[in-house]
Amino acid sequence: MTTIKCGEARRKGLFKGAKSLHSMDHSTEEAQTKEMDIRSLSSSHRHSQSERYIHKVGVPPKQNLFKEFRETLKETFFADDPLRPFKDQSRSQKFILGIQTIFPIFEWGRKYNLKKLRGDLIAGLTIARYWICKACKLGSTVWTVFVPPLIYAFMGSSRDIAIGPVAVVSLLLGTMLQNELDPINEKAQYQRLAFTATFFAGITQVTLGFFRLGFLIDFLSHAAIVGFMGGAAVTIALQQLKGFLGIKKFTKKSDIISVMHSVVASAHHGWNWQTIAIGASFLSFLLFAKFIGKKNKKFFWVPAIAPLISVILSTFFVYITRADKQGVQIVKNIKKGINPSSVNEIYFSGDYLLKGFRIGVVAGMIGLTEAIAIGRTFAAMKDYQLDGNKEMVALGAMNVVGSMTSCYVATGSFSRSAVNFMAGCETAVSNIVMSCVVFLTLEFITPLFKYTPNAILASIIINAVIGLIDIGAATLLWKIDKFDFVACMGAFFGVVFSSVEIGLLIAVSISFAKILLQVTRPRTAILGKVPRTTVYRNIQQYPEATKVPGVLIVRVDSAIYFSNSNYVKERILRWLEDEEEEVKAATYQPRIQFLIVEMSPVTDIDTSGIHALEGLHRSLEKREVQLILANPGPVVMDKLHASSFTSLIGEDNIFLTVADAVSSCAPKLVEEQP
Amino acid sequence: MTTIKCGEARRKGLFKGAKSLHSMDHSTEEAQTKEMDIRSLSSSHRHSQSERYIHKVGVPPKQNLFKEFRETLKETFFADDPLRPFKDQSRSQKFILGIQTIFPIFEWGRKYNLKKLRGDLIAGLTIARYWICKACKLGSTVWTVFVPPLIYAFMGSSRDIAIGPVAVVSLLLGTMLQNELDPINEKAQYQRLAFTATFFAGITQVTLGFFRLGFLIDFLSHAAIVGFMGGAAVTIALQQLKGFLGIKKFTKKSDIISVMHSVVASAHHGWNWQTIAIGASFLSFLLFAKFIGKKNKKFFWVPAIAPLISVILSTFFVYITRADKQGVQIVKNIKKGINPSSVNEIYFSGDYLLKGFRIGVVAGMIGLTEAIAIGRTFAAMKDYQLDGNKEMVALGAMNVVGSMTSCYVATGSFSRSAVNFMAGCETAVSNIVMSCVVFLTLEFITPLFKYTPNAILASIIINAVIGLIDIGAATLLWKIDKFDFVACMGAFFGVVFSSVEIGLLIAVSISFAKILLQVTRPRTAILGKVPRTTVYRNIQQYPEATKVPGVLIVRVDSAIYFSNSNYVKERILRWLEDEEEEVKAATYQPRIQFLIVEMSPVTDIDTSGIHALEGLHRSLEKREVQLILANPGPVVMDKLHASSFTSLIGEDNIFLTVADAVSSCAPKLVEEQP
Repeated sequence: MTTIKCGEARRKGLFKGAKSLHSMDHSTEEAQTKEMDIRSLSSSHRHSQSERYIHKVGVPPKQNLFKEFRETLKETFFADDPLRPFKDQSRSQKFILGIQTIFPIFEWGRKYNLKKLRGDLIAGLTIARYWICKACKLGSTVWTVFVPPLIYAFMGSSRDIAIGPVAVVSLLLGTMLQNELDPINEKAQYQRLAFTATFFAGITQVTLGFFRLGFLIDFLSHAAIVGFMGGAAVTIALQQLKGFLGIKKFTKKSDIISVMHSVVASAHHGWNWQTIAIGASFLSFLLFAKFIGKKNKKFFWVPAIAPLISVILSTFFVYITRADKQGVQIVKNIKKGINPSSVNEIYFSGDYLLKGFRIGVVAGMIGLTEAIAIGRTFAAMKDYQLDGNKEMVALGAMNVVGSMTSCYVATGSFSRSAVNFMAGCETAVSNIVMSCVVFLTLEFITPLFKYTPNAILASIIINAVIGLIDIGAATLLWKIDKFDFVACMGAFFGVVFSSVEIGLLIAVSISFAKILLQVTRPRTAILGKVPRTTVYRNIQQYPEATKVPGVLIVRVDSAIYFSNSNYVKERILRWLEDEEEEVKAATYQPRIQFLIVEMSPVTDIDTSGIHALEGLHRSLEKREVQLILANPGPVVMDKLHASSFTSLIGEDNIFLTVADAVSSCAPKLVEEQP
Repeated sequence: MTTIKCGEARRKGLFKGAKSLHSMDHSTEEAQTKEMDIRSLSSSHRHSQSERYIHKVGVPPKQNLFKEFRETLKETFFADDPLRPFKDQSRSQKFILGIQTIFPIFEWGRKYNLKKLRGDLIAGLTIARYWICKACKLGSTVWTVFVPPLIYAFMGSSRDIAIGPVAVVSLLLGTMLQNELDPINEKAQYQRLAFTATFFAGITQVTLGFFRLGFLIDFLSHAAIVGFMGGAAVTIALQQLKGFLGIKKFTKKSDIISVMHSVVASAHHGWNWQTIAIGASFLSFLLFAKFIGKKNKKFFWVPAIAPLISVILSTFFVYITRADKQGVQIVKNIKKGINPSSVNEIYFSGDYLLKGFRIGVVAGMIGLTEAIAIGRTFAAMKDYQLDGNKEMVALGAMNVVGSMTSCYVATGSFSRSAVNFMAGCETAVSNIVMSCVVFLTLEFITPLFKYTPNAILASIIINAVIGLIDIGAATLLWKIDKFDFVACMGAFFGVVFSSVEIGLLIAVSISFAKILLQVTRPRTAILGKVPRTTVYRNIQQYPEATKVPGVLIVRVDSAIYFSNSNYVKERILRWLEDEEEEVKAATYQPRIQFLIVEMSPVTDIDTSGIHALEGLHRSLEKREVQLILANPGPVVMDKLHASSFTSLIGEDNIFLTVADAVSSCAPKLVEEQP
């Protein structure tokens, strides 16, 4: 069976690979390869039986419409196949599985043991420490630390995430709310609006999860998030200047120009030097603690307890010196035991309904993005899968319940989740431990913090958000993808100079513009033969690749849709014109007689695309150039058949590979060679 | 050099192609091939020098940022390289070329001769006939037939297009204007608004052309246009029911529900039976004429002159019977010699400025779409290139001038351009001939048409627009691409049940949703080896392709962007899980140890995509599966380098082809085989 003669095989050009076994001078080798390629091309003319090897391009089996539709739907919305475990189960089993799907605690709870509890306990206590100083600021934040983690522990499927009020989301929420209402003078309405926003944030999250629209979150690109976070950090830090400088009259707006105007306007009589002294000294202390923690991994706990120490020290200091009499603002009224039910406080009608809805949607989306990103990161580290849509439902339910129990929007916090993870948490029980500890501590200890100066809280927040400005990530974006960098900067400056929503809008628009640009102006490339292979590649990427005389091989790097069909057609014709000019200039070059379009990257085509191909075929016919397609994919092949384009150019002008196509051109080409 | 032994070559698996020279039983053949493939894989382990053949994946030469940016800009906005002829020319030459670019008449005018004039004269006279009956309807349409073709003749570069008021655009404009103002009672304002809309239509067109945004037109897909035209035809035909049924009180709205309500409400006392009789008989006559013209190509002129005959006959009939006394509405007041200057009538301020602008933008876009499509079609037939952006400037300038000389929006008409083409036009001179003839005819003959019944004009319009409902095209859309069909139907029902703008919006949204869906949920495929080749293809499209044991080969069919990076990662992991389950079920199958990602269709990647690849790499490391990339393109390779992902997975795990990658896996694989 394998006893064919070597000579015969050689003439068929199958030996190209084997040749380089023998070492030889590079340049001669190349020249000889070229010569041989031409010989092998022309020889296949003589051996017309060689055409028998050429594989036909497969047409995928015709699917019926319903099935096709169902498949598309499934891949779009149920890509993770959530019903897979339900298959082949009895009804009662299905019920149990259903309960376990909604409340994963019943799944992992059965396997819960003392060893896991130990891990969770330690982790819970560790993260509890973090919340305590954060929670000092607002009375009702207490509830946000308490309720949502409990709900999440029952419904969530991430084992590592630490739930609670998160700097970005909370302060973002505050910033947006302050644009609508004054938190001091209109406190009741402000709180009601906050609960309304939290409610709609939860509803947004549940809705997205329930309708399996989780993929919408992916539309916030990494670049946009980097820029957005940086912008949010700057905005939040700027807001803290009020507490840090001890200014009494401060703008309600969040953009940098308004804030700086406010700061400068109050420079002469509004700044309180005592406040600044306290704030600055403790901010330096915090930054130093952070520096130590980074410098030496052994002291990772230093930055963790520094805020608590600052709060205790400064409170004590103010209490001793009665600095509040000299204009240093203090927290003063920490409310205790608020009525936890806030169902009646949510605006379900009126003007504030819409405002709360708008703020809630933004806060909910940002919260989701952060939580899902965190969940995914730690899931990848421990190698378990996380169902994004299920997570969303859990996070949303947690916020809906939260909004009814005096909580603000809660989500997963990256830094605390990392601490949780490193402290050895095993399940969401660490969240339960944490919430109980924080609640008890705050209920009994917070009254002691009446004298905490506002400047300290401002310092703590400034110190925290500075870490969100990720210059390294932005630099990497610049290095990898300029367009991503532009999106990142758009988000950053949008947030800083205008508002959170505008920043997001800019980032999303730029990201989409990039996708559309790629679809509207897809790349095309001229292919050449990589020496000593039968592989054809972009001659710009592989300068050693050589063009085949008389044949132009073009690859289109995108699906051909209405948005690019004309461009693709005209670009190909332009390549042809350029090539023809080059051929004219050279001597002993046959004119271009075949145009091979490599269709591998063309993943789809629509009717406009087929029209463009028809147009291309007509134009080529006029120039006596034959159009040949190489390796169209299943979907494309299907549509080419349906539109009978295949019969227009001839079934035998569609090949499996460029190499097949080239070798079929060769015999016809040789005859016209000068 | 080629004297290596056959046996050696065979072991290297280079003979796979040659084997099928010998006829043999198909099933044995396949089994043997498979066996041989495995043998050839394992043998390359022994011959480790075979790795020397493996080509490295090229990294394209580093471009500097400015150059890269310029290239992108050029491909996006100046894809057609409009300044090419200006290169290497003297200054005076450049000036002449510039003038010729703006006014192509100076280019082709120099080569104009008598032979061309003959063709143009005949063509011009032929299309003039068409306009004459159309132009009866509105006095000021006279100017629209006269001025724009003259301007276009100087500035346009299409040789075949016939310019003038076109059914779709004119009636669309009328419909939109009627939503704002009543054409009878508020006639002066109505006309002023019409001129304003025309002015802004022209400005829109010039702007799009000048800023090289011509590609925006491509966003109206073929499918959307088919649906939109059909919907517009139905809407226009419905509007004609007023004239056709002789109804006096008619709705101003254009949606089907309002119109049908109006028609039914006036059924008892508002319909005029004489009018209906005249309208119906002539409509049948027109349809019959059209049928004859279609049936026999020899009688193509029958449908062409039928409208003229109808007008003459019916006018004569009404004049004789004085049917206008019995309620048959007639044209009555045909204005003659309107003051052609309408500069002062355009609204440049006030409420109507915005309305005119909105209507103008829509009408301008539709007009452009039609004209460019026509221009491109005929340019392809005669094989000359048409610069879309230049055409836009010409069409826009023509409408701006038109709006100042009492013209409505003009554009290219498909049917008349076809007549022009078939009558043998050579240049845009046919437009000049046509406009002069029409103008003279109308000025001297139209007064005779005072007694033309409105029902006849309605019949002519209904007859004309029926041809726009292209059921064949819609059926083809259904056959080729279901999504396109949905976009088409969306446009159709949007126009019919709501308004022109809503219909367009629906169609564009659906078309974009499709692109985004493809980018968000790209196709992935498992590849297998096509027997007797070194080619790896989708096993669904090529059922004969066989998987390589121990290796999973996945192809991703799209650029990897933020919108799909997570999906791609999780989809690949799901493929791997499915495969691992299958392997477990089978006996004598080695476990999956290599995951080859075929990157040929991955035309681009962004930072989110690289993060996803890193995540994939981490997950695979946990499972002790090696990630291998095959054939990343230049852009992708560049970014993988920049992000040092290449060093993460190892440079030697990136291959030129899947075949290379597979053959490098083989030796490592064999050792673990049971």
